[in-house]
Amino acid sequence: MQINKYPERKSWSELIKRPVIKREEITEIISQIFQKVKENGDQALIDFNKKFDGAEIKNIKVSEKEIENAESLISNELKEAIQQAKENITKFHASQITAVEKIETTKGVVCWRENRAIEKVGIYIPGGTAPLFSTVLMLAIPAQLAGCKEIILCTPPDKNGNINPAILYTAKLCGVTQIFKTGGAQAIAAMALGTESISNVYKIFGPGNQYVVAAKEFAQNYNVAIDMPAGPSEVLVIADEKAIPAFCAADLLSQAEHGSDSQVIFLSTDEEIFNQTIEETEKQLKELPRNQLAKEALKNSHFILLDTVNEALELSNLYAPEHLILALEDFEKYIPNIQNAGSVFLGNYSCESAGDYASGTNHTLPTNGFAKNYSGVSLDSFVKKITFQNLSQKGLQNLGKTIEIMAEAEGLFAHKNAVSIRLKQENERV
Amino acid sequence: MQINKYPERKSWSELIKRPVIKREEITEIISQIFQKVKENGDQALIDFNKKFDGAEIKNIKVSEKEIENAESLISNELKEAIQQAKENITKFHASQITAVEKIETTKGVVCWRENRAIEKVGIYIPGGTAPLFSTVLMLAIPAQLAGCKEIILCTPPDKNGNINPAILYTAKLCGVTQIFKTGGAQAIAAMALGTESISNVYKIFGPGNQYVVAAKEFAQNYNVAIDMPAGPSEVLVIADEKAIPAFCAADLLSQAEHGSDSQVIFLSTDEEIFNQTIEETEKQLKELPRNQLAKEALKNSHFILLDTVNEALELSNLYAPEHLILALEDFEKYIPNIQNAGSVFLGNYSCESAGDYASGTNHTLPTNGFAKNYSGVSLDSFVKKITFQNLSQKGLQNLGKTIEIMAEAEGLFAHKNAVSIRLKQENERV
Repeated sequence: MQINKYPERKSWSELIKRPVIKREEITEIISQIFQKVKENGDQALIDFNKKFDGAEIKNIKVSEKEIENAESLISNELKEAIQQAKENITKFHASQITAVEKIETTKGVVCWRENRAIEKVGIYIPGGTAPLFSTVLMLAIPAQLAGCKEIILCTPPDKNGNINPAILYTAKLCGVTQIFKTGGAQAIAAMALGTESISNVYKIFGPGNQYVVAAKEFAQNYNVAIDMPAGPSEVLVIADEKAIPAFCAADLLSQAEHGSDSQVIFLSTDEEIFNQTIEETEKQLKELPRNQLAKEALKNSHFILLDTVNEALELSNLYAPEHLILALEDFEKYIPNIQNAGSVFLGNYSCESAGDYASGTNHTLPTNGFAKNYSGVSLDSFVKKITFQNLSQKGLQNLGKTIEIMAEAEGLFAHKNAVSIRLKQENERV
Repeated sequence: MQINKYPERKSWSELIKRPVIKREEITEIISQIFQKVKENGDQALIDFNKKFDGAEIKNIKVSEKEIENAESLISNELKEAIQQAKENITKFHASQITAVEKIETTKGVVCWRENRAIEKVGIYIPGGTAPLFSTVLMLAIPAQLAGCKEIILCTPPDKNGNINPAILYTAKLCGVTQIFKTGGAQAIAAMALGTESISNVYKIFGPGNQYVVAAKEFAQNYNVAIDMPAGPSEVLVIADEKAIPAFCAADLLSQAEHGSDSQVIFLSTDEEIFNQTIEETEKQLKELPRNQLAKEALKNSHFILLDTVNEALELSNLYAPEHLILALEDFEKYIPNIQNAGSVFLGNYSCESAGDYASGTNHTLPTNGFAKNYSGVSLDSFVKKITFQNLSQKGLQNLGKTIEIMAEAEGLFAHKNAVSIRLKQENERV
């Protein structure tokens, strides 16, 4: 823990500087993986499964039967929990559907936007010990709401060639159209390029290790879009004298357990709360099963005591945290001051894990300072907004002169002529 | 012109394949330019101005006086035209402002989104013969509407060190906060890294040559966002028997005059209209001042005769044009079939140049097939949407069990504990 009391303002940016992510030079490896997938398609994926995951499987596509079986392998309790989360996430994302609004900008000139789903999207879910079925909810639900025709999911198999049943169950529940047993950079390559089994998609979503992140960036060379740039997960908590140290400590630790590179920042305006939260964090840490990871993350965490909540918000805006928790009594009045954050949790009972799982908001959020220029995933991430316009003859008469003058001033005479020829024909007819 | 009558469906994708853009290996050059700007700041920009633009200037920042003078250098007619365009663009983009809608997903759990402007944005406007003041309108108006605090504009000076007055006038009119005389990759580097005069920005917008495009991509390594990937401009026109060949030809040529790599596609279901449009295109071409560029572009253009409008729309969706013109009598009924397009122009009087300049829609649109996965620039491009949530004590009681079960199933016990500790405290208090 790095503890600072009332640091000078000029030291702030240095104080909360994120560690520079050492990106290994893996472009060459990624490029080779893409090449192999391009050349050998499904067979390349089968070979990579053997090599990287130790799984010998013949068919990378998960069968209907496997999906059906998954349902019997998970508890009713978990099914009900997933169901409640699904309902909330659906409710919140459905509220993001916008109605078409036609605007008559000039008499006879009508403009509007309509949403169209991105037809084919791909979701990547990492393997490993934690089966991230919550991320399946966060990506498949808005994809289905948006109306994406193909929603494919890739995730690495375990050594026995199986996928965690919670992932399969959730994928089916949320309208994923096909699931494939392939992970890492090769899964991203398959979704970008297509194979015999996997249809190439237009946009790829989902978290992953540095190879997956690098592969998503590389996929953009093939005209595939990605959800957003990636970085380690972060939380920043601002606590006043009414905050509850045990709650703050639990929130900080829930971020720290994500991994040793997680970023954890605690700002308080109350010295007692400040000191108690530090104590509580150390106390709770000892009781955690994954405390090694959390311990590492806490080494780089910052506990900073400040004079005012407004100062704390200034520092937070400078940092632009992925998650921002306002453990403040009068949080409402500070909302307008929040400029840069991915998702904000208000009051003592809005813990980050509510948003991570079940409150309804999306947990795919901008990290690494990208909250300054990116939004988290929402329904918008799965649609294009197409503009439409209709000019009547009268409309073009009202606007034509303006277009002609501007086109000529830019030296674009064919642009001008597209108007002139229409106005002229009109005059001749009249 | 490449003319095809009733081509077999299986040949479509080959037929309308875009030419592969030969991207020269300029990453090394771009990287060096970034390095120079990083090391020498403003002086690097001054040196580059001399080297690339032949301009010797001492101060890269455009002075208040230069901006004031610009107003007297352009005609009242042009000022009025710019004013009408500004009003329409403002009206359309202001309609994109969304109200905050609070959603109670579970009793006591309230979620919503709020927009926050990206604080600092940069606009790049290319130099050359055509002063693209229309692009200033298209980027500065939504930036100002969104509430961006800093809107900086970079554009290269001419040999005498001056900026086109129409650009200066429009920039001032639309709330650009600072204008700098610098162009090319070095301007992008300056906006990404910052110099003594130029503040680094969080997102860069605007068109440019291959160096600018490559520099925008490179800027992303410095956590800067960009508007969208770039490619040559395109139009696809679908015409039925009620289309007017002279209008269609004028629209095709207005696209062709953009440059020799412009893409122009004409689809018709009526052989007479088809043949007449080809004739008209050749006739009108001769009268154009910039006909050399248009002539080159037309060499790669496609004129394709098809059986039905639905077929034409299928082919259009496959191609995903930046601009789509429906010169169809009953265009309304085909709107739902449009899946992939940047901006759509409906009927015989909705010429593309209306949208390029003054109807109100944005002209910064996805090219090169990116209409499959990207939207054009809109108000959304200048804001982040931050999610908020507030759970009351009762709200967490209603949702807590679900979060605990899910967190445990993912093996994230600190996530679970952030809920348990709150529920426990509640029980103790009760």
